[in-house]
Amino acid sequence: MINVGIIGFGTVGTGTAKILLKNKSLLRNRTGIRINLKKIADLDIKRDRGIKLPDNVLTDNVDELIKDPDIDIIVELIGGTGIAREIILKSIRNGKHVVTANKALLATHGTEILKAAGDMNVELGFEASVAGGIPVIKVIREGLVANRIKAIYGIINGTTNYILTRMTEEKKDFGDALKEAQKLGYAEADPTFDIEGVDSAHKLAIIASLSYSSQFSLKDIYCEGISGISPMDIEFALELGYKLKLLAIAKRRGAKVELRVHPTMIPKEYLISKIDGVYNAVSVEGDAVGATLYYGKGAGDMPTGSAVVSDIVDIARNIVSNSTGRIPLMAKPEKAVGPMKMDDVISMYYFRFSALDKPGVLSKISGILGKYNISIASVIQKGRREGKAVPLVVLTHKAREKNVVMAIKAIDRLPVVASRTVFIRVEHKEPD
Amino acid sequence: MINVGIIGFGTVGTGTAKILLKNKSLLRNRTGIRINLKKIADLDIKRDRGIKLPDNVLTDNVDELIKDPDIDIIVELIGGTGIAREIILKSIRNGKHVVTANKALLATHGTEILKAAGDMNVELGFEASVAGGIPVIKVIREGLVANRIKAIYGIINGTTNYILTRMTEEKKDFGDALKEAQKLGYAEADPTFDIEGVDSAHKLAIIASLSYSSQFSLKDIYCEGISGISPMDIEFALELGYKLKLLAIAKRRGAKVELRVHPTMIPKEYLISKIDGVYNAVSVEGDAVGATLYYGKGAGDMPTGSAVVSDIVDIARNIVSNSTGRIPLMAKPEKAVGPMKMDDVISMYYFRFSALDKPGVLSKISGILGKYNISIASVIQKGRREGKAVPLVVLTHKAREKNVVMAIKAIDRLPVVASRTVFIRVEHKEPD
Repeated sequence: MINVGIIGFGTVGTGTAKILLKNKSLLRNRTGIRINLKKIADLDIKRDRGIKLPDNVLTDNVDELIKDPDIDIIVELIGGTGIAREIILKSIRNGKHVVTANKALLATHGTEILKAAGDMNVELGFEASVAGGIPVIKVIREGLVANRIKAIYGIINGTTNYILTRMTEEKKDFGDALKEAQKLGYAEADPTFDIEGVDSAHKLAIIASLSYSSQFSLKDIYCEGISGISPMDIEFALELGYKLKLLAIAKRRGAKVELRVHPTMIPKEYLISKIDGVYNAVSVEGDAVGATLYYGKGAGDMPTGSAVVSDIVDIARNIVSNSTGRIPLMAKPEKAVGPMKMDDVISMYYFRFSALDKPGVLSKISGILGKYNISIASVIQKGRREGKAVPLVVLTHKAREKNVVMAIKAIDRLPVVASRTVFIRVEHKEPD
Repeated sequence: MINVGIIGFGTVGTGTAKILLKNKSLLRNRTGIRINLKKIADLDIKRDRGIKLPDNVLTDNVDELIKDPDIDIIVELIGGTGIAREIILKSIRNGKHVVTANKALLATHGTEILKAAGDMNVELGFEASVAGGIPVIKVIREGLVANRIKAIYGIINGTTNYILTRMTEEKKDFGDALKEAQKLGYAEADPTFDIEGVDSAHKLAIIASLSYSSQFSLKDIYCEGISGISPMDIEFALELGYKLKLLAIAKRRGAKVELRVHPTMIPKEYLISKIDGVYNAVSVEGDAVGATLYYGKGAGDMPTGSAVVSDIVDIARNIVSNSTGRIPLMAKPEKAVGPMKMDDVISMYYFRFSALDKPGVLSKISGILGKYNISIASVIQKGRREGKAVPLVVLTHKAREKNVVMAIKAIDRLPVVASRTVFIRVEHKEPD
């Protein structure tokens, strides 16, 4: 029998407990192992979560779990980077295997936690930390183990994908779409982490670290959110054959990895551009397998609980077969790879200039672009308002981010440019 | 060091060998294990496969591998159900772990092979047998282990998906699209197994057996191919909001599982209906995780090789950590589930009647449908040709297959019906 203790009886904790109870015999039959939910700790042990627990399972004392010699696996589901970190480290020091869904903690203190787990020879499961119910960590680490990972493109934040979907389908502006998402429970009262891309960056740090056997953290990731996106740019994108998505991108470039989260235009016909609403999807490109994609619910009690329980089962199987550590916590890199500076990233770009509608303007703008080695793929001027500002949309060929930033700065100083230029990166996958 | 022997140096054998050689150090770093390609056996050891092997790896004598005490894992990649079966059984009897991509063999002799492997306590890996490079077996068995599987919908044959895609996009007829697929190498000279759905049924037998812990074989699966599909029905489907796909479906219904492969109309907005060309996708619905989908290349040397190598790595990890058998070859079912008879399947249907364009015809047809408890959701008559046959398209609500077959038989006997009625099943996922 494997005893499990859950710390944090919120949404995911409840989902996890429900699955462990409801599918107990299923799990037993599939694994040959009795997985027993021995304890759940939470500060609030009164609230009704719509689940009937056996007697003596609930406690408000975390130590009852961490110090219980019978408990094999501690599941940390309280979130945040404070108490959660202490609980995990203490559990590890007490020889417990740990399962967590805590992306913020892993993306900021991952190195410390992995080291502690390695020192104590305990397992650390974190499938639920990225893309909810989609088993993308297992896929990257095991299913695609034969592959050098060329690139990852992820829609790994349901809140922003919902907002962008509504802005695209209903031509809503950002504020209205956000309000709608909040009303439906898809966005939090303070949505900053989601809409500014921080949550996606946390998750990207985790999957990129696994994919490239390096310990990337939040500070290695360029991060830009969607709060500045206007419906006009979504419209223009569609006209040009693109959908606008908040993508988390990791891309191998020699000894460096591009790591970036930002609004991205992707060709309409790509499968990932068709992922709408709160759903998540992660596209992983391997050198052998080519392009693959994994899709499902990125949040919620039961989907995330599904991922937590899959980690519990993996660890239980290892305990029973005496093979903990069967998969190293962190693989050795072939060569050390570091994060690429955003300045050095090469991308295509969409620019929307607010240019006065008068002769010679395009020549001034394209002159500056040319000076910075940015070549134009296509130009569309929308509408005519002589002497007034109109949107001038430019798509570029591949250019260097640093040059783009400098060029835009110079262009925004031109008297014929009425307001700050909008620029959005455009992503085409490399051909296989 | 783990020694691997490959039997069958064709497309997948070559891809597997390429990966094992090219990504050798990657695999070593990820696993801590040296995986050594010791031998490859094939009848033809002269042909150039575009791969440079170390000396003494190639042999035309299978026994050199099976009887080599140093070889830990035999990879069977010759295909078919004759010699391949003997080689696998002999390898198992010699205590070798086995990896295979042979769906036909598993779908017809799976029970015998699983039993042999169980008796000898060896591992059997078959990730590559379904959906090529997509790690769908690992996903079902491990990633979604927490879930009761409600349904599986798979596009798991690239040939037929390519043909249907071309028929849809270019309004080609079946014969022309098939010829094009053959020219491009997407269809074999004798395409029967693919176009008649047998290959999909083989793969469905494998994933359904895993999902429901039962040993389903080809004979349990209703199987209908795409050779009878006309561009007209694809057109009507689009008009009605559906795409036409060859789906492999497994659906739990109490103590039975619906197991069927047939052309299926699915709502255009479903993600799986957007999977085009030779790509494969498998949608898996679990009771906790909800709907998920896995997408990638279903065939080819490197994608399939990626799956083969992932099995080799899993087994190597188990050997090194002394945990072979860590995941049971076959889980115990909670309750025995059996295949549902096709007669008892409940579905919605698309009918295309060739009905004479004269008064009273619809009433005759709908009278018979009513008699068999089939209720009509919508009717479209296409074109008018008084007194001649015109297509009359009917969409039904849920009806029982047996009733549908009987009703169509009765309708086709009506003097006002000019030729055999076309009927295609229509699938809407159950709401989560």
